[in-house]
Amino acid sequence: MSGDLLVTGIGHLVTNAAGRGDPAVIADAAVAVAGGAVAWVGPAAALPARHRGLPVLDAGGRAVIPGFVDAHTHAVFTGDRSGEFARRLRGETYEEILAAGGGIHATVAAVRAAPFDDLVAESAARLRRMLGQGTTTVEVKSGYGLDTATEAAMLRAAAAAGEAAGVDVLPTFLGAHVVDRGADREEYVRLVIDEMLPACAPSARFCDVFCDRGAFTVDEARRILEAGAAHGLRPRIHAEQLAHTGAALLAADLSAASADHLDHATPEDAAALAAAGTAAVLLPAVALSMRHPQPPARMLWDAGVTVALATDCNPGTGYVESMPFVVALACLEAGLTPEEALWAATRGGALSLGLSDRGWLVPGAVADLVVLDAPSYLHLPYRPGTGLVHTVVTRGEVAVGA
Amino acid sequence: MSGDLLVTGIGHLVTNAAGRGDPAVIADAAVAVAGGAVAWVGPAAALPARHRGLPVLDAGGRAVIPGFVDAHTHAVFTGDRSGEFARRLRGETYEEILAAGGGIHATVAAVRAAPFDDLVAESAARLRRMLGQGTTTVEVKSGYGLDTATEAAMLRAAAAAGEAAGVDVLPTFLGAHVVDRGADREEYVRLVIDEMLPACAPSARFCDVFCDRGAFTVDEARRILEAGAAHGLRPRIHAEQLAHTGAALLAADLSAASADHLDHATPEDAAALAAAGTAAVLLPAVALSMRHPQPPARMLWDAGVTVALATDCNPGTGYVESMPFVVALACLEAGLTPEEALWAATRGGALSLGLSDRGWLVPGAVADLVVLDAPSYLHLPYRPGTGLVHTVVTRGEVAVGA
Repeated sequence: MSGDLLVTGIGHLVTNAAGRGDPAVIADAAVAVAGGAVAWVGPAAALPARHRGLPVLDAGGRAVIPGFVDAHTHAVFTGDRSGEFARRLRGETYEEILAAGGGIHATVAAVRAAPFDDLVAESAARLRRMLGQGTTTVEVKSGYGLDTATEAAMLRAAAAAGEAAGVDVLPTFLGAHVVDRGADREEYVRLVIDEMLPACAPSARFCDVFCDRGAFTVDEARRILEAGAAHGLRPRIHAEQLAHTGAALLAADLSAASADHLDHATPEDAAALAAAGTAAVLLPAVALSMRHPQPPARMLWDAGVTVALATDCNPGTGYVESMPFVVALACLEAGLTPEEALWAATRGGALSLGLSDRGWLVPGAVADLVVLDAPSYLHLPYRPGTGLVHTVVTRGEVAVGA
Repeated sequence: MSGDLLVTGIGHLVTNAAGRGDPAVIADAAVAVAGGAVAWVGPAAALPARHRGLPVLDAGGRAVIPGFVDAHTHAVFTGDRSGEFARRLRGETYEEILAAGGGIHATVAAVRAAPFDDLVAESAARLRRMLGQGTTTVEVKSGYGLDTATEAAMLRAAAAAGEAAGVDVLPTFLGAHVVDRGADREEYVRLVIDEMLPACAPSARFCDVFCDRGAFTVDEARRILEAGAAHGLRPRIHAEQLAHTGAALLAADLSAASADHLDHATPEDAAALAAAGTAAVLLPAVALSMRHPQPPARMLWDAGVTVALATDCNPGTGYVESMPFVVALACLEAGLTPEEALWAATRGGALSLGLSDRGWLVPGAVADLVVLDAPSYLHLPYRPGTGLVHTVVTRGEVAVGA
């Protein structure tokens, strides 16, 4: 039957079955999969007889981890902003580039001009590369349309690209990414609430707002996110990246699914997020690419916040597709331990998306897993910049490698 | 004939034909290769008739760059130090780990215990992965033997692994990597000079010394490097990484091929290196992995030094195999422009190894080149952590991809 598999020969299996930051490793392990879901996990020597007839994938002594859950991306886009990137390296700030019509606006122009099928094909190729790096679930935001038709088309493109790539896509409506060029600010907020949201909500799971200095205010974000919630969309918020504005406290107040970036978050923010059960989605590759200080990952973790790691894959401020790279940066630049970083890149991401059925390998979980070309998950930060993915399994089927 | 090729359909060709830091890009270019060497480079429309009958590799509009020259590695080794890496992440210093018998000593024990064929096979697989990331020439150091027989065996293993992987290896004798455990310091220096050097020099191109705080002194380094020079080995020096010791000035005084690391180099050091024609080999991935500040790349470049970039691939302080990753770090963390970083990773590396025939694509050069899966070399720093290598050509033959 489709989605039936027995993964054996696993040197070290990361299950994440225990708690936050505990990989709960099983040595010499096996994972039995039935109908795309994990049926049994344990030491290979204890495998029940009823699972012994399954088709076998031999990991050859390699390590196995849950598939990565990339909880913050803008992976549906077209257009090349490498020239803008080079300008940033020479000292221009992102806000200067945005004000001059670059930044998000450049991608908006490219996305509006792109035929739908081209947008899907390019995005599917990108998601497929992400799958090749071990990512099996991806959150994807709209926000390069800034008009109702293109925002809705982006969400349809995200679904179609995920289907084509074989990656689970969680779509987020981000009409409030930036005020469209030439638009009146208040009229744009009303457009988002009165027209975009009703049109886009059926295709989205979450509503997000870019709430930051130079972007939407906390008051505007509250109005948009409350309107989104009325349409059944749980809030996510871009918070405290460029400056401290109060967006994290808004996230906590709204019981948002996540507050993302958090470069300038304070201990008060952390306490509020922890109390509200709002996840902190940290994006160390963006801090690297923007040459900003890293978010206070250690402080957030120690405050008890559910920390997730994500790529923020986007064409401007961090064109990064690889969760192994993000795990390495989280350890080397942002102060997490390998165990914390791995948990945040798998289980933390899943929890930030409200998905209890993945990010771990326990009976009943979706059978998304990665065979590393390494004996231990420690090699992810130990060997940065190297592709360490040997095989990727989604819903019990080999999707990459083998 | 073997090594004959016509690379066409090149959107942007980096030739490095102009000068330091100038990619000298040709648009819509072609490269003709005869007998493994570049025969002609220019706009495809101007291709001479005599090269039109060559076997064709169509780059499909992608960018092409010279093969990377990785000018500082310890790529011949065995043994896993990911546990030590995790200890460093938790706060132990490298010097504490070394003093406790870890660090280099752990790899020395593993290399001494490994059968020669296993050492070659593991190292060849590593060099093959490096080739897959676009590296076509690699400097490889000994230094995990610390006795005459094992040092000599490491140099033989480097040659054999390069042959097996299809990568050009430049071998460096580094008997003075660390004083062997339990050995008398002065006796060890004499062993290096009197016994190891005569035995190893025929298999090596360079002589290197780990000259730093806690390692060999400047006086010891001078004795060893002068002895190496008497055996025909040009000096390279580990300089100014952990502290400022004067090693860079020694390098300049000896007209060394390179001074490597240079994290604590001063403007005086830079002026001396520039005047001596000694290259600065910078290793930004090691600074990342060690969580040290980056070397003063900008200052060295601006002082007119020949700057090279390298991985320092080694099992302890930076298990990095990817030159694209190093290029990205050099831009994002160490302050070079994309053009400077790319030049340093190709032509700069070649010059630091005394190789005038590579690191650029001009008539007469070795036909080592990389087709990027991108329209421009700018994508190397723009998209960190992504494998952007489409095809690798060594001596006019497709070695990876296509």
